[in-house]
Amino acid sequence: MTKKNRLIYLPLGGAGEIGMNAYVYGYGPKGKERLILVDIGVTFPDMDTSPGVDLIFADISWLAERADQLDAIFITHGHEDHIGALAMALPRLKAPVYCRAFTGNLAVRKLEERGMDTDAIHIVGAYPEVVQAGPFKVSFLPISHSIPESAGLVIDSHAGRVVHTGDFKLDETPIVGEAFDAKLWGEVAKGGVKALVCDSTNVFSSAPGRSEVTLGPSIRHLVANAPHMVVATTFASNVARVKTLAEAGRDAGRSVVLLGRAMKRMIEAAVESKVLSDFPSLIPPEEAISVPREKLMLIVTGSQGERRAASAQLSRGKYLGMEMKPGDLFLFSSKTIPGNEREVIRIVNAFSEMGVDVVEDEGHLYHVSGHANRPDLQRMHKLMQPQILIPMHGEHRHLRAHVALAKESGIASEIVVNGMMIDLTGEEPKIVEYVETGRTYKDGAVLIGALDGVVRDRIRMALNGLIVVTLIIDEDDEPLGEPWIELRGLPEVGASKVPLADLLEDDLTQLIGRTGDKVLRDDDKIDDLLRRRVRQVAMEELGRKPEVQIIVSRLMA
Amino acid sequence: MTKKNRLIYLPLGGAGEIGMNAYVYGYGPKGKERLILVDIGVTFPDMDTSPGVDLIFADISWLAERADQLDAIFITHGHEDHIGALAMALPRLKAPVYCRAFTGNLAVRKLEERGMDTDAIHIVGAYPEVVQAGPFKVSFLPISHSIPESAGLVIDSHAGRVVHTGDFKLDETPIVGEAFDAKLWGEVAKGGVKALVCDSTNVFSSAPGRSEVTLGPSIRHLVANAPHMVVATTFASNVARVKTLAEAGRDAGRSVVLLGRAMKRMIEAAVESKVLSDFPSLIPPEEAISVPREKLMLIVTGSQGERRAASAQLSRGKYLGMEMKPGDLFLFSSKTIPGNEREVIRIVNAFSEMGVDVVEDEGHLYHVSGHANRPDLQRMHKLMQPQILIPMHGEHRHLRAHVALAKESGIASEIVVNGMMIDLTGEEPKIVEYVETGRTYKDGAVLIGALDGVVRDRIRMALNGLIVVTLIIDEDDEPLGEPWIELRGLPEVGASKVPLADLLEDDLTQLIGRTGDKVLRDDDKIDDLLRRRVRQVAMEELGRKPEVQIIVSRLMA
Repeated sequence: MTKKNRLIYLPLGGAGEIGMNAYVYGYGPKGKERLILVDIGVTFPDMDTSPGVDLIFADISWLAERADQLDAIFITHGHEDHIGALAMALPRLKAPVYCRAFTGNLAVRKLEERGMDTDAIHIVGAYPEVVQAGPFKVSFLPISHSIPESAGLVIDSHAGRVVHTGDFKLDETPIVGEAFDAKLWGEVAKGGVKALVCDSTNVFSSAPGRSEVTLGPSIRHLVANAPHMVVATTFASNVARVKTLAEAGRDAGRSVVLLGRAMKRMIEAAVESKVLSDFPSLIPPEEAISVPREKLMLIVTGSQGERRAASAQLSRGKYLGMEMKPGDLFLFSSKTIPGNEREVIRIVNAFSEMGVDVVEDEGHLYHVSGHANRPDLQRMHKLMQPQILIPMHGEHRHLRAHVALAKESGIASEIVVNGMMIDLTGEEPKIVEYVETGRTYKDGAVLIGALDGVVRDRIRMALNGLIVVTLIIDEDDEPLGEPWIELRGLPEVGASKVPLADLLEDDLTQLIGRTGDKVLRDDDKIDDLLRRRVRQVAMEELGRKPEVQIIVSRLMA
Repeated sequence: MTKKNRLIYLPLGGAGEIGMNAYVYGYGPKGKERLILVDIGVTFPDMDTSPGVDLIFADISWLAERADQLDAIFITHGHEDHIGALAMALPRLKAPVYCRAFTGNLAVRKLEERGMDTDAIHIVGAYPEVVQAGPFKVSFLPISHSIPESAGLVIDSHAGRVVHTGDFKLDETPIVGEAFDAKLWGEVAKGGVKALVCDSTNVFSSAPGRSEVTLGPSIRHLVANAPHMVVATTFASNVARVKTLAEAGRDAGRSVVLLGRAMKRMIEAAVESKVLSDFPSLIPPEEAISVPREKLMLIVTGSQGERRAASAQLSRGKYLGMEMKPGDLFLFSSKTIPGNEREVIRIVNAFSEMGVDVVEDEGHLYHVSGHANRPDLQRMHKLMQPQILIPMHGEHRHLRAHVALAKESGIASEIVVNGMMIDLTGEEPKIVEYVETGRTYKDGAVLIGALDGVVRDRIRMALNGLIVVTLIIDEDDEPLGEPWIELRGLPEVGASKVPLADLLEDDLTQLIGRTGDKVLRDDDKIDDLLRRRVRQVAMEELGRKPEVQIIVSRLMA
């Protein structure tokens, strides 16, 4: 048995996917490491894989079982994929949460919404301020991203310095929040960086990233020249963009209205936490109704086509008294995240039917990404000169490309996906353990495992439909009356043109009539017999095998 | 009552969407027009809107009710969104089907697969060959597209000449099939074109379209320099692309293997109908196993990530004895159709995990579109100089942009979507009727209407889960035993940590105990009572309101 201390890294989410970030670091003797968690985010469900689910986050069982080893949770920034699961995870983890002011403002709101105590949230200043968390000294190192006060983390232990970038881009003119400060980052790297754990999202984008400030002129020009009402959507958390849009409206002599709860909440949080000042004055929707349309600019939620957000509402008709008219302009100051295309296109077509001119970001005039592109990543590698580079925040293809990029510069690197525990103590990253990980679904008010079968059953009902058969067996093990059939999600009539329920009831009645007592005495055998027959008849009639639920009610003597 | 003849155009599908093309033309006195149908295609279901559905095509009820007025069906080309519903629609339409040889070969295969008679299929030569269909004279005017023998239709009647472009691009070097022949199209336009009914797919692409031939060098270079096995996927029907890929393999000294039923079927059809000759020789998969990997080139189906196609199979493991290994190259010589991103990305990541180098068409080196871009559309407008332009094959946003484009050139134009009947007789298009249209689902072996409620029920079960309650009421209107609960697609345990089924059984038993005879005598009232209570308890326990199925079995005296 060795008592040597080791420095470990274990992603529970975010490594092998974009979304639901959750990274564990540990330092100490094997199995007894003191732990910290960086970020605890969500990812969003879809109909294909998770119908009916509200939110998805990393399975934190491993960490929850070691809650007594956990010294702190650090949140790098306020995007949902980094902070969204905090309220769900905190009761199991019971650790203090550290973040910067804006992120903290959002965190407090999240806990308050659920009536939770907010004492766990601690607001921390930027580097060189230090949080001592067990064997770790951790600082928040400001960096530019598409939300205010994003930060990398400087994580020091006796095993050396780890820099966890969080999500970032290299923006020296970010409109809101701190510019990327190469000098500061360089200073942090001076004593040597053991490992750089680095955002991989845009590793496939080969041109250098563009600054938020570059959008101003094109957005101003578009808004100033629009003949009627202008409506623009972007990610609500992109406070800088919202400001650019609002200023373009104001400069064009338009009254500016924010629509959508998230939009208003973000601006409020930014003002309260003092990251935003001099935001153009706003008018409420009820006042907007009396302003001439050509003097209006709405900034709205729903850039991803979310059904309940303001954009989708406007595409279906009136929303808070506002409605789109022919000649209005609708601007997507955003990109469509892969998987959301159908929803966004639906909105674009609905606006087209209304005669609205939709401007998407085809020519990259109205949106810039919040993540570092390939050349920016190279710049970061060079600046930090880490001994080891671990790519994070990416699908497998991103991690793989990022490792290749690091190796081109002679940096030791390894693809580390969720559940792989890495020892960073030595000169090269070493895989030391595979931890069982997965996804937890917030399903209504209940947390369920992705593999619990609940969602699988929903998908099966959606794909196959359901036939429910009820049968009563009397005290003498004789059927009482006929079986009763209910169809759900299935055509009522198939090949023979006879209603399928009637046909099945007749067919099963005959089948049961021919069935011996031995089967009728055994619920499992009846179940099996009826199920097979129902599926067979359904196949003949409908050309498909539905899900079948057999309910046998047995009267007691 | 006027006896004046009129020329009408009525899209039943394809106008307001990309997919399920079905366009009706008619000529004759109002309501007594003789009709022809151009194309009868499908579109594909998705989990969000049509779970469990196999195929979707236009509701042809309007036309089926007028089958005695229908003189012919013309198929412009063999893509599924133009020909895919032929076998399903033909029994209701009972009209002769005209197409060119390659398309006809595919049509015959479709009917034979279902054991249908193929007598209805008639192979027609290219323009100037004419099919007389009632009052119409129709010719197939060859044009380039991403499948062999695509054709526009020259549709002559006493009201003048209509040119229906079908899907097209302006490719003068298309590798397989006829080049775009501007002289021939100009000739057709000479006597004047009343209406050009024109593909709108790529109206948002501002650069001129690129020829199929431009891909040869980059594909050859990629394949020649790959160190290990090369696997390439493209749309199986893009015979020219498959040829380019196969030749690149052969020229690099590789044995070429086709994987995937559709791929082999398309090449067979192309050879049989003589549109393809000098295709590189192929080897079967069972031989390929003994060829050194660096001497192999597979061309496979599944460019859209389809679960059962060869690409997806290879991403999950062995397929027909073949399997991917580290250092192999996988090329997407295709674009991802919006909505298929998730499936494609899943495959890319699976290959990444295998250490395969995936090449997508980021730099447009390995794929060109089959549709005319904006400048090509302008060229076509200029060449044909139609009196009227009707955009088709596009979502509303495409149709709208195409109308604007036509009007820029002073051409009369109108957005015509599915169900709008247009009179083309005069100088301007005139809306004369709105016909009820919609979508028909092929669901297993049954055809159902999109609004029949079947699919809506499936979606509800997927989103909400289902609780089945069975209750037996005896001859005296008294409950016999307790209600029985089955949960489907729901967590078994909620807030109170008691199994939900047990909790509900107890709760409903008490509820029924408190319920008066008047309710117990009335099935609707029991249903309503239990349903409300189940939803209420589920809301308290699970935080969601599931679908509820109440089954009351009443014993007869």
